[in-house]
Amino acid sequence: MPLPDSSRRAFLRSSTIASLGLPMASWLSGCSTGARDGASGAAAAGGGIVPDASIALTTPRPDGQKPVHELTTQPRERVRVAFIGAGGRGSSLMHDILGVDFADIVAVCDLRQERAEAAADRIAKVRDKRPVVIGGHEDSWSAVVERTDVDVVYIATPWEWHVPMALGAMEHGKHAFVEVAAAVTVAGCWRLVDTSERTQRHCVMLENCCYGENELLVLNMARQGVFGELTHGECAYIHDLRSLLFDLTGEGGWRRHYHLTYNGNLYPTHGLGPVAQYMGVGRGDQFKFLVSVSSPERGLTRWRDEHHPNGGAQAQEHYVCGDMNTSIIKTELGRTIMIQHDVISPRPYSRINALSGTGATFFDYPARLAVNDPKPYGLAATGSHEWLANDDLDKMRQRFAHPLFRRLSERAKGSGHGGMDYIMNWRHLDCIRQGLTPDSVVYDAAAWSCIIEVSARSVATGSMPVQIPDFTRGLWKGLAPLGIAT
Amino acid sequence: MPLPDSSRRAFLRSSTIASLGLPMASWLSGCSTGARDGASGAAAAGGGIVPDASIALTTPRPDGQKPVHELTTQPRERVRVAFIGAGGRGSSLMHDILGVDFADIVAVCDLRQERAEAAADRIAKVRDKRPVVIGGHEDSWSAVVERTDVDVVYIATPWEWHVPMALGAMEHGKHAFVEVAAAVTVAGCWRLVDTSERTQRHCVMLENCCYGENELLVLNMARQGVFGELTHGECAYIHDLRSLLFDLTGEGGWRRHYHLTYNGNLYPTHGLGPVAQYMGVGRGDQFKFLVSVSSPERGLTRWRDEHHPNGGAQAQEHYVCGDMNTSIIKTELGRTIMIQHDVISPRPYSRINALSGTGATFFDYPARLAVNDPKPYGLAATGSHEWLANDDLDKMRQRFAHPLFRRLSERAKGSGHGGMDYIMNWRHLDCIRQGLTPDSVVYDAAAWSCIIEVSARSVATGSMPVQIPDFTRGLWKGLAPLGIAT
Repeated sequence: MPLPDSSRRAFLRSSTIASLGLPMASWLSGCSTGARDGASGAAAAGGGIVPDASIALTTPRPDGQKPVHELTTQPRERVRVAFIGAGGRGSSLMHDILGVDFADIVAVCDLRQERAEAAADRIAKVRDKRPVVIGGHEDSWSAVVERTDVDVVYIATPWEWHVPMALGAMEHGKHAFVEVAAAVTVAGCWRLVDTSERTQRHCVMLENCCYGENELLVLNMARQGVFGELTHGECAYIHDLRSLLFDLTGEGGWRRHYHLTYNGNLYPTHGLGPVAQYMGVGRGDQFKFLVSVSSPERGLTRWRDEHHPNGGAQAQEHYVCGDMNTSIIKTELGRTIMIQHDVISPRPYSRINALSGTGATFFDYPARLAVNDPKPYGLAATGSHEWLANDDLDKMRQRFAHPLFRRLSERAKGSGHGGMDYIMNWRHLDCIRQGLTPDSVVYDAAAWSCIIEVSARSVATGSMPVQIPDFTRGLWKGLAPLGIAT
Repeated sequence: MPLPDSSRRAFLRSSTIASLGLPMASWLSGCSTGARDGASGAAAAGGGIVPDASIALTTPRPDGQKPVHELTTQPRERVRVAFIGAGGRGSSLMHDILGVDFADIVAVCDLRQERAEAAADRIAKVRDKRPVVIGGHEDSWSAVVERTDVDVVYIATPWEWHVPMALGAMEHGKHAFVEVAAAVTVAGCWRLVDTSERTQRHCVMLENCCYGENELLVLNMARQGVFGELTHGECAYIHDLRSLLFDLTGEGGWRRHYHLTYNGNLYPTHGLGPVAQYMGVGRGDQFKFLVSVSSPERGLTRWRDEHHPNGGAQAQEHYVCGDMNTSIIKTELGRTIMIQHDVISPRPYSRINALSGTGATFFDYPARLAVNDPKPYGLAATGSHEWLANDDLDKMRQRFAHPLFRRLSERAKGSGHGGMDYIMNWRHLDCIRQGLTPDSVVYDAAAWSCIIEVSARSVATGSMPVQIPDFTRGLWKGLAPLGIAT
């Protein structure tokens, strides 16, 4: 849903919900655009950014709020979905939902009316009913959240719009299914948590990578004890986006602006979500603190200066985000998670997706597993000094494939990102249909997303350890990790 | 050179040079054995460890000392070598040196006289002259450093003996070639630096991994500009040593003790040495600070409790070193180095050995290279979104194989660790023969080794950033990275 910067600001300024967003901390210097959840009037008008004194680690749960870890809702025969955002990502999600036989897309909204119309046309070809089309105005999305025929609002818009739109959905009684990251500031994360608890609506982040074949396999192996006692995980978002960041017809219209503002991990959730679920973060364990170090910014500037994209329109931009950001998270149980962000360096895609424990070690890209004692699994391997041979790995896959993957992998074929998108959408929507608590709730959305600001704070203070807020307000201690059973 | 603990202490106590060693800082709590360079009388007698106020970052260079970055020495026709330590590692090094036609092993020392005799016998079968055998007493090694027919003293003994023995060698006019790590404390590192500068003798750490085929390839590619501007590196020592750590006939006799004392990176140099050379650390760049986080200790205790090694003799030991230690180093030029230590988890060996820049990314285990622009190299690849196919990688290997590797790889076949040991020994000894400055000098030995204590300090203080001493005292700024040319 790319917009010229001036339109984007106007969109936010005129929004009735934009004022819920908090401005960014002043130490995230460099640019007054981009890195906030919603926009304050002053910032939107081009004024200074109001400093945020510190990260709010936790506060007592306000009166009138209740935890949502075990929030169940009224079962429904069919789930009615509305979309805000009919760009590339929104369209892909809609495609997947058309394959979910108990879900209906009843409304589609995009600032660009013609994109919403085109999406509605595509839906009408497959389903009996053409969705209502909403769009063309900067506050059009308000009409989506205000509808009375919607259960779930999907939000697939630029990052800074996620919080105000999710708040709007929940305030109007809908569940918010929001793209990653759910928020780009800690304050935004708390807004999501408090609103989900007050409205008793779910705020589910659409972290598709939690539903990848390998991620579900590792999760299942972890729950079945293959890894023994978990000690360490690794994850990343490593994806060369240099070209994309200057494509003004796509995400480059807004995503590049974060590189002018934040020096830290701009995109933590694809890697971190799965590892957090392996470890039961938020349910039995919790993030405690993080240290973060960025390499110098070199590659984006160099790419721009060598390619002169957009006729040199960005020639004066000053990027502050280091090419590679490496952070280490320490959990309350003492475990460590190494997490990286690099969308600049010339290298193949990877989320690393690694887990170690006393019983086994897994690494992805490509998938590799070593187990401490191969005997109980009937493997040819004699020990853990080599990765399992393909036959052994296949044997483990057959034994430990996740039930959700077994059930849905055929249907998921052809859907986004190797099928994970379909499985994610089906599973989240099925939870709403059955009235079950989704696999990840607002605390997970907040914990995984807050790493953006927490990492930037560590970098900005010379890599000091920065505490990570406990969005569960201590409830993690009394809960057990989920298996994402079906 | 494994010894019962009581013998080891007595060896150190009776040594004339042991008093040069400084006791460890008190915050490295948990055990009074093991983690020091040499032993103070009090510690050796079982008394408390005297706290060290802080890491000495740098001090003015004392009068009478001169830098050794460009220290050249009198060329010699033949290089005369003496060995302290004829255990597994010492024997392997001797074997390599027998293949260096301009070097003679003139003396072999081991606390266990019979091991020194056996080594001398092996040497006598290949060379005209049987080396002198020294040993059987706890201070036997003093007689080695006092000899007048020795140019280089090889030191292949347990870690805490490295500093006193290297100091002894240099004080008596010899070059010290010392196994990794050169020292286990920052204070020990400074002793090595100051003594090398005062005596104008080299203290070269035997970091064989700097001479691996892939490491030399990456170094050469970095110098030839393939990586463009360097931004980030990764390295590790990942090697499941659980069984070895309880083998009292080998390194388990002393190496396990560090797991009772240090919680940090116990063995940084195999991974870090090569990456530091890629980046020109000490020559054009320098380590600045480090943050370090350890996972919980789980695996060593579990392995012991499941296997009951040595009849349960270690059943009461309390290990403090986390299974996985992850650290991030920031350099003065802003680059980052992620470095890990895990000798416990069930997983295959890896030093990671990765380097990223604006032009390329390399990862090892197995070797993978992606280049930003494949055209200048005539590759089939079209971009950097995939690792080079084998044919392309071979093409790059042929083009960028290091001259030293080209020259020595045939002769190195069959020597330790895939040939790297031979290349290292030949190269270091050849520098002494020609009177050239070795590729790495005492500043490198100190910088790479000091990570042991610096990482432990960070872990002990809740992962605070800890400054890394500048052992060059600012000289790094005026030097250019070496290419290790031949």
